[in-house]
Amino acid sequence: MNTQKINWYPIVILGLLALLVATFAALVYRSAGDQSQNAASAFTRQDAQYEWKLVTTWPKNFPGLGSAPERFARLVDEMSAGRLQVKVLGAGELVPAMGVFGAVSDGAAQMGHGAAYYWKGKLPAAQFFTAVPFGLNAQEMNGWLHYGGGLELWREIYAPFNLIPFAGGSTGVQMAGWFNKEINSVDDLRGLKMRIPGLGGEVLNRAGGTAVTIPGGELYTALQTGVIDATEWVGPYNDLAFGFHQVAKYYYYPGWHEPGSVLEFIVNKDAYESLPEDLQAIVSAAARDASQDMLDEYTARNNKALRELVDNHEVQLRRLPDDVIAYLAKINREMMEETAAKDPVFARVYEAFKAFGAEAAAYHEISERAYYDTRELNQLKQD
Amino acid sequence: MNTQKINWYPIVILGLLALLVATFAALVYRSAGDQSQNAASAFTRQDAQYEWKLVTTWPKNFPGLGSAPERFARLVDEMSAGRLQVKVLGAGELVPAMGVFGAVSDGAAQMGHGAAYYWKGKLPAAQFFTAVPFGLNAQEMNGWLHYGGGLELWREIYAPFNLIPFAGGSTGVQMAGWFNKEINSVDDLRGLKMRIPGLGGEVLNRAGGTAVTIPGGELYTALQTGVIDATEWVGPYNDLAFGFHQVAKYYYYPGWHEPGSVLEFIVNKDAYESLPEDLQAIVSAAARDASQDMLDEYTARNNKALRELVDNHEVQLRRLPDDVIAYLAKINREMMEETAAKDPVFARVYEAFKAFGAEAAAYHEISERAYYDTRELNQLKQD
Repeated sequence: MNTQKINWYPIVILGLLALLVATFAALVYRSAGDQSQNAASAFTRQDAQYEWKLVTTWPKNFPGLGSAPERFARLVDEMSAGRLQVKVLGAGELVPAMGVFGAVSDGAAQMGHGAAYYWKGKLPAAQFFTAVPFGLNAQEMNGWLHYGGGLELWREIYAPFNLIPFAGGSTGVQMAGWFNKEINSVDDLRGLKMRIPGLGGEVLNRAGGTAVTIPGGELYTALQTGVIDATEWVGPYNDLAFGFHQVAKYYYYPGWHEPGSVLEFIVNKDAYESLPEDLQAIVSAAARDASQDMLDEYTARNNKALRELVDNHEVQLRRLPDDVIAYLAKINREMMEETAAKDPVFARVYEAFKAFGAEAAAYHEISERAYYDTRELNQLKQD
Repeated sequence: MNTQKINWYPIVILGLLALLVATFAALVYRSAGDQSQNAASAFTRQDAQYEWKLVTTWPKNFPGLGSAPERFARLVDEMSAGRLQVKVLGAGELVPAMGVFGAVSDGAAQMGHGAAYYWKGKLPAAQFFTAVPFGLNAQEMNGWLHYGGGLELWREIYAPFNLIPFAGGSTGVQMAGWFNKEINSVDDLRGLKMRIPGLGGEVLNRAGGTAVTIPGGELYTALQTGVIDATEWVGPYNDLAFGFHQVAKYYYYPGWHEPGSVLEFIVNKDAYESLPEDLQAIVSAAARDASQDMLDEYTARNNKALRELVDNHEVQLRRLPDDVIAYLAKINREMMEETAAKDPVFARVYEAFKAFGAEAAAYHEISERAYYDTRELNQLKQD
């Protein structure tokens, strides 16, 4: 009965206004939702970004030894989806080669790559974690470090320097080195001027030679000019790249002084502990991968390089005589005992190393060595 | 002029209705926003959760060999901050031991752990990726797989099964096995009933023996009751746990038939490719770590177990005579050539394996083997 006419105009206006307000409110609300979502994910998912410097004792892109830090950085980048960026700096870029230990200890860099025996001046016992003459080969070193208590000892002696060490590569049994004098007897060691670092150098000095320390980049010239009579380096794959065959005649084996040299990654303890647990685990696994990878590369590539040296460059491959080996082994035992008598930390690591070494060497007599002996009679023997 | 009266009642009702609709729209919009936000973050931050099954050819918590999948699962959990959960299922839990290859191929499980030579029925060439009699030792296998083209070949022959293989452990040189008959000459191989799988079993059959296949759990009883005269297993650390010394007299070396057995992780290709790149890298590095870790554990623990066997359990440690070794090596060469003549895939892998093996064996003559020889004269020799 009341047919009142409705004016729709203001109703539509107000309705549209309400929709506009509501839409605006919804957008604000959604945006706030976005922010809380982001904040929660940053906290719970530990996706903070870390930028680390890794200083090395090698020049940038150094063949062989220098590939481990590059591989490490790449693996960490991939596994962390870029959350931990590791910048590799060669010797001299941030600190000189021999400044790596100090720089990582101080925190000037978060990581370093090199070899523990470079720090023998600070810490004589560090040498056990690279190479001991007549000591452990690569497989045995890995067994000692990861299941024989070796890594725990290494971490204990580096702890006062605020450093955590990891195995960072292995060369396998090295060559005895490049010589311009033949070694036919113990007498030929007398007066021999040879670049040979670490405990092996100590042995040479006691055998009447002169161990000298010359950086890798100067060795070629030192051999060429006769400043030294001999140098050890690594093995065929690495040595070919350095061109030592152009300035030395004889290539001797076996590498009694470095039977399975281990390289090292060192990590500043505060930097390591500042990482979330997943990135700590990633650093650890990347180091283990890069460490094993180096040995695999040398194992696969050494012989081709050796053939090239012998077949195309007239290198004379020679075995050190048994009496020379026996003499060096005897001097080495005396030197190790005397060093242990002077340094209680060295003595403690030496005892652990000897105990493990006796077990590992005994088992490898009937396994690895006995197996190598069977090659005299099978199809893999190359002759 | 026209002072028409406005009826506010329907306007207010409609306005409230519009607000209600708008609020509802806003809530729906926000909810949709959340979902798209989650999807976007899953894509960019790759923080979706993955649950994988890893089926093994070993019983749950199997000593030695069974520790690799457990370590793998733990490392992946740590490195992925729990985003990839790997559940290890022992033989018989989801599929029987010999069903692992099929289950991972089908996608019933995302991963498996075992040994490639178990699949020789499907794929004879798979045996190269575990062990070849008189073939490569552990260090050489790692070199071949990672720098000698071995892994690429392995992946190529597994690709038709939708599987990606990774090295999954190494035992080092195994022992020749447990015997209740002395092996003094080639004649003693005739009639010998021995549990020995893979290519080594083929060699024994050709030498006049009988190679039988018996699961690990039944070996003890089979030796005890005389069903078999001998069995190979792994090495002292593993064998001690199985108690074989209680039912066999002689423990022979060296393990000519398995000089450096490699275990395997297999991953379903679709499952692997469904992972974001960081988790793929984590799977790869965790496999490499677990693979190397197994060898380190055996290297560190074998000799203590061997001493216990010899000193406390009157096990007689024996070396296989040289003429027996030479005879087995000769038969092995013939068997390998004949198998290659029948199977082109086997032939192709064999050529690659031989070429790599010749190089690696030649270099190890002057490095690893020559170094082991120096132990006759130094302090690590145990006597």
